[in-house]
Amino acid sequence: MLLADIKIRVRYAETDKMGYVYYGNYATYFEVARVEMLRKLGLSYKELEDSGIFLPVADFQVKYIKPAFYDDLLTIRTVIKTKPGVRLVFDYETLNEKNELLNTAKVTLVFISASTNKPIQAPEYFLKKLAEATLLS
Amino acid sequence: MLLADIKIRVRYAETDKMGYVYYGNYATYFEVARVEMLRKLGLSYKELEDSGIFLPVADFQVKYIKPAFYDDLLTIRTVIKTKPGVRLVFDYETLNEKNELLNTAKVTLVFISASTNKPIQAPEYFLKKLAEATLLS
Amino acid sequence: MLLADIKIRVRYAETDKMGYVYYGNYATYFEVARVEMLRKLGLSYKELEDSGIFLPVADFQVKYIKPAFYDDLLTIRTVIKTKPGVRLVFDYETLNEKNELLNTAKVTLVFISASTNKPIQAPEYFLKKLAEATLLS
Amino acid sequence: MLLADIKIRVRYAETDKMGYVYYGNYATYFEVARVEMLRKLGLSYKELEDSGIFLPVADFQVKYIKPAFYDDLLTIRTVIKTKPGVRLVFDYETLNEKNELLNTAKVTLVFISASTNKPIQAPEYFLKKLAEATLLS
Repeated sequence: MLLADIKIRVRYAETDKMGYVYYGNYATYFEVARVEMLRKLGLSYKELEDSGIFLPVADFQVKYIKPAFYDDLLTIRTVIKTKPGVRLVFDYETLNEKNELLNTAKVTLVFISASTNKPIQAPEYFLKKLAEATLLS
Repeated sequence: MLLADIKIRVRYAETDKMGYVYYGNYATYFEVARVEMLRKLGLSYKELEDSGIFLPVADFQVKYIKPAFYDDLLTIRTVIKTKPGVRLVFDYETLNEKNELLNTAKVTLVFISASTNKPIQAPEYFLKKLAEATLLS
Repeated sequence: MLLADIKIRVRYAETDKMGYVYYGNYATYFEVARVEMLRKLGLSYKELEDSGIFLPVADFQVKYIKPAFYDDLLTIRTVIKTKPGVRLVFDYETLNEKNELLNTAKVTLVFISASTNKPIQAPEYFLKKLAEATLLS
Repeated sequence: MLLADIKIRVRYAETDKMGYVYYGNYATYFEVARVEMLRKLGLSYKELEDSGIFLPVADFQVKYIKPAFYDDLLTIRTVIKTKPGVRLVFDYETLNEKNELLNTAKVTLVFISASTNKPIQAPEYFLKKLAEATLLS
């Protein structure tokens, strides 16, 4: 299991008239969190795309427990539980500064070859980096 | 069962560098679709809020099958399968102009009293309007 | 002069904690308005891009007078005052349902060839469609 | 003159099908930059709002020179040139990692009393913090 805590500050643009972070904006937070987690592991999502592999989202699930508010400094706890194959799965917990659990989520991505537009196995160098990594925080 | 087909045109701002509609933007499409469905039923989400009842999202699930592209005129098929209590559940299918199924989703909202910040039953007038309604399209 | 009134309904996602439409979201409204105006003229922005011509924004100015609120049905009055050359300029006024002027804006786009990445003159068929058009509403 | 360089990483959600940061998203970057600049000066925009003073945007101008791309680590150079009165003006330059100037912008905000909904002078403690501050970076 690999875990990284990524900090994201809530922007004014991301709030709605209830004063809450709009429920759809967590998709962006989770994207930022997985990209930053991969960066900590020495993996660049941008380089992956530049090498001809895309990682579109196949499945997204969120369970909202409490809202986040403007200027909150959120912790997005990002976890990879299983070795990726064709799919790469991230589990998330969002916590606020009082360490309250705001929501839990799961995002499933699929490795796609840009040339064939077909699913492919995770590249070897990608798996190697994950295998070398130890528990992060 | 109540069903409404809501049309949404993909905006340039909603695409990403893959050329796809960014996965998080469907949350907004589904919000628009349920609000427009309620409007067809004679129910205004804005008036609901003005009367002191909020409907935050408690659960959101999407399964992505195919991408949508810039300028696509999407059909968001929006369905209420069960009579609301404290919760109001919408099931969705997104279709493109070729009638291809792009994704399926489920959004669960909770009726919350603005004064107590606690869950409450769906208001009577709301249930009455749903009961009066027949199959839409 | 060409003028089109484009209607846009404010989405929940587009409001902020003040209850106003977030100031940056008008950029998207103005994009939708110019694309819909061109569609009324028989011009497709998507086809323009597919033909190898991009129209990135070179200049954007907004003067905000009053806010828009959730569920407002806005009128984006969109005007082309001058024949496009390398540049295409749109002037905007945003009005609410009470016909109050909410803001005025100007967006300048530049025709760019995708193959050379250099500015080019507006294509002939584009100018022809504009010349044929009469005052819209 | 007060100056702060604020770093913002481009998110996938913020790109469009051209591969550029969508032109409207700079409004959000400039919001983040001014809030972080104020934080460096010991001023919290959130606390300002909690004390009953809002700062809506009255005027926004951007001149786009070059695009930003996914994963770019942008520098938003944020400058206050003049002592605020009823208005607070920020001048911006966006630079990429090669130190190329991507755009310049100006945002004018107005101090508004939440109780009267009328413009007011910048509060004393706010001006005091700005007066105490020296050139930042």
